[in-house]
Amino acid sequence: MSRKYTIGIDFGTLSGRAIIVDAKTGDEFADHEYVYPHAVLDERLPDGTPLGVDWALQHPGDWLEVYYNTVPAVLKESGVSPEDVIGVGIDFTACTFMPVKRDGTPLCFVPGFESNPNAWPKLWKHHAAQDKANALNHAAHSRKEDWINRYGGKISSEWEVPKAWEVLSQSPEAYAAADYFMEGADWIVWMLCGNPTRNTCTAGYKGIWHKRRGYPSPEFFAALDGRMKNYVAEKLDYPIAQLGSRVGGVTKKMAEKTGLKEGTAVAAGNVDAHVAVPALGIDGPGKMLAIMGTSTCHIFVSNEERDVPGMCGVVEDGVYPGYYGYEAGQSCVGDHFAWFRENCIPAEYIEKANAEGLKPLAYLDKKAAGLKPGESGLVALDWWNGNRSVLVDVDLTGTMVGMSLSTKPEEMYRALLEATAYGTRKLIEQFREYGVPVNEFYASGGLSQKSPVTMQIYADVIKMPIKIAGSKHGPALGSAIFASVAAGSANGGYDDILTAAKAMGKIKDVIYEPIPENAAMYDKLYAEYVILHDYFGRGANDVMKRLKNIKKSFK
Amino acid sequence: MSRKYTIGIDFGTLSGRAIIVDAKTGDEFADHEYVYPHAVLDERLPDGTPLGVDWALQHPGDWLEVYYNTVPAVLKESGVSPEDVIGVGIDFTACTFMPVKRDGTPLCFVPGFESNPNAWPKLWKHHAAQDKANALNHAAHSRKEDWINRYGGKISSEWEVPKAWEVLSQSPEAYAAADYFMEGADWIVWMLCGNPTRNTCTAGYKGIWHKRRGYPSPEFFAALDGRMKNYVAEKLDYPIAQLGSRVGGVTKKMAEKTGLKEGTAVAAGNVDAHVAVPALGIDGPGKMLAIMGTSTCHIFVSNEERDVPGMCGVVEDGVYPGYYGYEAGQSCVGDHFAWFRENCIPAEYIEKANAEGLKPLAYLDKKAAGLKPGESGLVALDWWNGNRSVLVDVDLTGTMVGMSLSTKPEEMYRALLEATAYGTRKLIEQFREYGVPVNEFYASGGLSQKSPVTMQIYADVIKMPIKIAGSKHGPALGSAIFASVAAGSANGGYDDILTAAKAMGKIKDVIYEPIPENAAMYDKLYAEYVILHDYFGRGANDVMKRLKNIKKSFK
Repeated sequence: MSRKYTIGIDFGTLSGRAIIVDAKTGDEFADHEYVYPHAVLDERLPDGTPLGVDWALQHPGDWLEVYYNTVPAVLKESGVSPEDVIGVGIDFTACTFMPVKRDGTPLCFVPGFESNPNAWPKLWKHHAAQDKANALNHAAHSRKEDWINRYGGKISSEWEVPKAWEVLSQSPEAYAAADYFMEGADWIVWMLCGNPTRNTCTAGYKGIWHKRRGYPSPEFFAALDGRMKNYVAEKLDYPIAQLGSRVGGVTKKMAEKTGLKEGTAVAAGNVDAHVAVPALGIDGPGKMLAIMGTSTCHIFVSNEERDVPGMCGVVEDGVYPGYYGYEAGQSCVGDHFAWFRENCIPAEYIEKANAEGLKPLAYLDKKAAGLKPGESGLVALDWWNGNRSVLVDVDLTGTMVGMSLSTKPEEMYRALLEATAYGTRKLIEQFREYGVPVNEFYASGGLSQKSPVTMQIYADVIKMPIKIAGSKHGPALGSAIFASVAAGSANGGYDDILTAAKAMGKIKDVIYEPIPENAAMYDKLYAEYVILHDYFGRGANDVMKRLKNIKKSFK
Repeated sequence: MSRKYTIGIDFGTLSGRAIIVDAKTGDEFADHEYVYPHAVLDERLPDGTPLGVDWALQHPGDWLEVYYNTVPAVLKESGVSPEDVIGVGIDFTACTFMPVKRDGTPLCFVPGFESNPNAWPKLWKHHAAQDKANALNHAAHSRKEDWINRYGGKISSEWEVPKAWEVLSQSPEAYAAADYFMEGADWIVWMLCGNPTRNTCTAGYKGIWHKRRGYPSPEFFAALDGRMKNYVAEKLDYPIAQLGSRVGGVTKKMAEKTGLKEGTAVAAGNVDAHVAVPALGIDGPGKMLAIMGTSTCHIFVSNEERDVPGMCGVVEDGVYPGYYGYEAGQSCVGDHFAWFRENCIPAEYIEKANAEGLKPLAYLDKKAAGLKPGESGLVALDWWNGNRSVLVDVDLTGTMVGMSLSTKPEEMYRALLEATAYGTRKLIEQFREYGVPVNEFYASGGLSQKSPVTMQIYADVIKMPIKIAGSKHGPALGSAIFASVAAGSANGGYDDILTAAKAMGKIKDVIYEPIPENAAMYDKLYAEYVILHDYFGRGANDVMKRLKNIKKSFK
């Protein structure tokens, strides 16, 4: 058999990117990015209709253009024949959720609905349905719905049901006209292969679906709004698709638009974070991946299904088929350091950074790397944007303890790096405490690539070696790996995701190993973090909430 | 009677300054500063002998030069005839302590002792006797000496006995050769009038003297070192002098050197902080003066003698004769803001400050003044340099709570201003709780003059109007007021300090009045400060000490 290839396409917040890889080894041959012309619609619709506060929509046409532009480009650049492309996989931001007609037309393209904001896809960071999320959570706890515990006790305003309920509440006509509510991930797959499906990842993490228990009951939905009683039956009436499964072949029309061969295997949709797991070669349970950017998302699989307080969700088949996929999160990681860069670096340091040709944070990284654990006398809580796991409390705020007149900026900066590492250790220990083992640690995302001092601190704090993503295009590579599984071994791919991940995933040669004396010191400092974490975070002193309430009274 | 005048001379850390004022009204006519040629001897003696870590000495010749230079200068500039100068008063840094021969010669001027560091005056900030202070405090508490409670439970390494004990310990020959141990304040008065005296202020606050109970017992001193048993009898055998009393007249020699008339009344010595009280016209009990600089010293008088935990000292006749003088302190006030200036102001702010022609802290003052109490959501503990009153714990460190990604530098800066105001309120409430009323509040020192936003915050937090020193030369004016009392009404001065203070002291026209809505908000925020103060400061969570111990292990 000649060498075969798969294409992975990562649909992000502002652009889409395709890569083409060897279907056996994962070696990358070409990549191409397409920037969405409409970007994020957060002020007005394309026809000028104004949007409210916290709205964030997208234009489905932009996503289609990603297919039309990036696939021909990677085929051309790599020189690969469409005959040798055996599969296509995609990943998408989530939850990005939209009403759709039975023929696949987004409701926003239906005449009469172009100016209706509720007819448009709501991007993951659309936060206008917070009141619906609050009411949903209240109802779930009042009714003692046990599924809420699979989500750490709280459904986010970003997820499917609050967004759909918002449509019903504000525009019953849009709700009625929608034949389906659908994730962008699933709609873009449908457009490629002609079959509407729901992938197990978004259905589970964003749609409150459980493989054996299904969705919340009609009674629950009726408790939200009587008109929503049959939401699942009426609006989600299209099949569940396993991750890595072949949901169809490239349609004739899309073959013409993209240059792919008609019938090329198309994998079920996936989410940009979760899809990155195989891209590092993660091939089994207990191997946590941290995707470290402005915030951090932690994903791994396990043989155990447990309710772990403070996680974001546990979904059977949600990451790898046959496993329980766990997600946890830290709501502010790189954002801490960006805040510090904007607000706390003195002019003298900027001058020195410039003199050395370093960016401000790279200069601080260098100075922080020269410090030893404990030397600063500082401990911080990493709550500048609240706490996701394990306290699930957006009203917590940051703190730092231990400043003296000799405290330097690089010491405070390092204390923030350390605080986010303590936050990671806290959630790892939470999983272990609740019977879900975490034995290995992997990192991808911008911070993992550009801040060795951060990664060494993490290794020392969590006391595990840290392996780093080997590809710059982790999500797209993950999608290409799932595409190889959708194609199957008979066609030159693989028959299961673990084998495919092991063969095609990549980590860097550099592994951050814990340094024993640092780890011993961090055991002491982490113990201080935990005391402060519980004091400020578990009700002993709700000063942060009281101060925040006062602060809010000025808005 | 023609118009009469007094001269006040303030001996500071780096220079001395004289002013000449109307002996009835306090109106100032001339001032002159003389900078000490030897400044602070903290690396070597004038002959090159090296000094140890934390040593800080001064050269007595520099002080004499202040007389020789400043007095003729103010006489000349004001055009006042020496015949019309009725008194001279001085104030000095304290505790600045020195061994002296019976004829007044500083031991450091005695042949054979020039190269002996222990023969030289130890400046207030000489901190090398910390081990002696620790041992002294341990002995006092072991022996249940009740006088230790008059000093908040702790004698400072800056004070007399640790410094004298250090002489004995390191140089028994210097100790033996000293006929007297003496405050600089008293020595410089002796040089002017020919009579050695101990003023009640330094004797009480720095020398553990009590008007009726005297000094600690010989047994206590013997417990420190058997050779010190008769320290009081052997080394302090010269009379106590009441503040404002006439301790003698200007000698013939000094009249020739200064241009003053021989026999002009010389007032007992005083301390630069305490002497400032009458300079603001403070004329009775319960009127607290805060001298706000890098640190803050709080001084007031009362009719009550109480042991108040966490104060620096209570001394009968220590501020005004006939009253109990109280002193408390905050070890870090302006120093907080200087730290913030050096370490936490981003380059963009420096550029904007420059564009507006403002110094960095003046620019931050302006921005902070635009914020409302509570708007930032921040509360800090003002412990960057430990806590003096009321916790008396140098091992406490700073903290700040409530940061978010939208927190701005001016918000953190204002939180530090507020924290120091909360610290002031805390010590005021401590005095009240222990039965010592504080009814009015006055401020002098640099911060009181240049930072209106700071003073308004203080007024709002302590809920009292704040009156501000009217003279730039508060200590010198205070000395001149005591000089007027030393001269007496028969000579054109006054017979008691309260009448003199009322007539001669000055405050600015601007009084900072509490703004009711701000005060109400600060009640809430202060309540949060107190919770954190007690949690971190009273043993519930000794994280600060544990972190500091770790930090110290790297030194």
